[in-house]
Amino acid sequence: MSADGAAAPARFSLNQETIRQWSLPELVDGCVAAHVGAVGLWREPVRRFGVRETAKLLAGAGLRVSSLCRGGFFTAADRDGRASALDDNRRAVAEAAELGAEVLVLVSGGLPEGDRDLPGARGRIADVLGELAPWAGAHGVRLGIEPLHPMFASDRCVVSTLGQALDLAEGFPPEQVGVVADSYHLWWDDRLASDLHRAGRGGRLVSVQVADWVTPLPAGVLLGRGQLGDGSIDLRRFRELTDAAGYRGSVEVEIFSPTLWARDGSEVLREVIDRYRQHVD
Amino acid sequence: MSADGAAAPARFSLNQETIRQWSLPELVDGCVAAHVGAVGLWREPVRRFGVRETAKLLAGAGLRVSSLCRGGFFTAADRDGRASALDDNRRAVAEAAELGAEVLVLVSGGLPEGDRDLPGARGRIADVLGELAPWAGAHGVRLGIEPLHPMFASDRCVVSTLGQALDLAEGFPPEQVGVVADSYHLWWDDRLASDLHRAGRGGRLVSVQVADWVTPLPAGVLLGRGQLGDGSIDLRRFRELTDAAGYRGSVEVEIFSPTLWARDGSEVLREVIDRYRQHVD
Repeated sequence: MSADGAAAPARFSLNQETIRQWSLPELVDGCVAAHVGAVGLWREPVRRFGVRETAKLLAGAGLRVSSLCRGGFFTAADRDGRASALDDNRRAVAEAAELGAEVLVLVSGGLPEGDRDLPGARGRIADVLGELAPWAGAHGVRLGIEPLHPMFASDRCVVSTLGQALDLAEGFPPEQVGVVADSYHLWWDDRLASDLHRAGRGGRLVSVQVADWVTPLPAGVLLGRGQLGDGSIDLRRFRELTDAAGYRGSVEVEIFSPTLWARDGSEVLREVIDRYRQHVD
Repeated sequence: MSADGAAAPARFSLNQETIRQWSLPELVDGCVAAHVGAVGLWREPVRRFGVRETAKLLAGAGLRVSSLCRGGFFTAADRDGRASALDDNRRAVAEAAELGAEVLVLVSGGLPEGDRDLPGARGRIADVLGELAPWAGAHGVRLGIEPLHPMFASDRCVVSTLGQALDLAEGFPPEQVGVVADSYHLWWDDRLASDLHRAGRGGRLVSVQVADWVTPLPAGVLLGRGQLGDGSIDLRRFRELTDAAGYRGSVEVEIFSPTLWARDGSEVLREVIDRYRQHVD
């Protein structure tokens, strides 16, 4: 039971970056105390703690891993860059398998330094996926292509819409490659409802994440995500659209916010669950 | 002749915000000296100088007005907000007519405070246009709906793609309502080529603007536009796509950059023309 006396809603999952001030044991204890059933993990803190140790810790607490962030960064134009991305992604697949993660989230990567060829970079992603997807399939891991907001197109992710992510994913079997729908990245897109429908119909919607859109954006724009309910996104409609697309998995709260990171983790989790009930569930 | 001895390219137009440190007379003198044939103007400095006085100054110098920025901000949900937007836009149409501007640029407006209904806000734009478009037609002024980058969807412009702008424009005669294509806002969109083609086919492409995309974005993201060639956009391909869509009008350089504003205006204009030749023309 959480401090307010109620367990977290059944489909609620906490992405660990939302409360990055917590160590892995603190995350597990905090989630158990609040009856949170699943967490989204990031590779760096998991590797620091140990992949096997993390898997044991979670299993002992009965926590599922709704996603592992992240593989990807496939857009290198040179042979070495491509090979090194593929190596790193094979390791990410192995880590996801060991953690029993439901999906390995892929962020495609941006334009290489000095490169202005967006269609070219997008083409290279399909090429690397051609090698990675069967590898993931053999390890029982599902890849989830995550479109990021177009404001990240040059430096982080040349896949900017759910439609583009689906164009890529549909080149592979659905048990190998799906798509990730994050409200923060997709809320502005008037094709969202039809693209979610397309994703659901093809069995491609493998992860749903939520954060709110608040302005003004901070410098660098990465850490501007808002607490649920603080911004402009109709989060309930977003979740309902994913429901209508047939999605029945975890809804993961992933907020990068220095304001939340500066606070007591348990207090943040209580607030996040409360906001989730008010604005998402 | 500009200081490097060559006239500005024939289709080059200078948006006055690019060198906002210049007064209107300085802008006119600077453009005449560099053989620039057209300028994009903003309502605020024009009204401070006087609309009629500006029109006379430009006519005396033989300068065309490729666009007037801007009308719009149509998304108010209340009756008074709607009426006041319509009044202001009627004045903007009259100003555009007096200046002989080839197009009045419309930025739709964002979500009203506390409102999360994006489809609702988009619907209200069509409603206001229903009154404004015939008014503009009667004054011989063409309206240009400008989609802004999705990072402005909540606070400035709920029209985020050229496709959305066309959906709106096509409800009206093409001599009344067209669309504006700005590289900065649209470069990331994989539907850009087909949407430009659609715009050209329907006679809807009424203004083309260019600025480059540079990161990291500054806080608030409004003033992060890059000098041509400094960023990630394949500007020549962008201009060629507009050519292929049948566009033969001005290509307006519109860069909001405190770095450029801090420099000598004539030096900035020389650099802008030079970069335009290297990266756009």
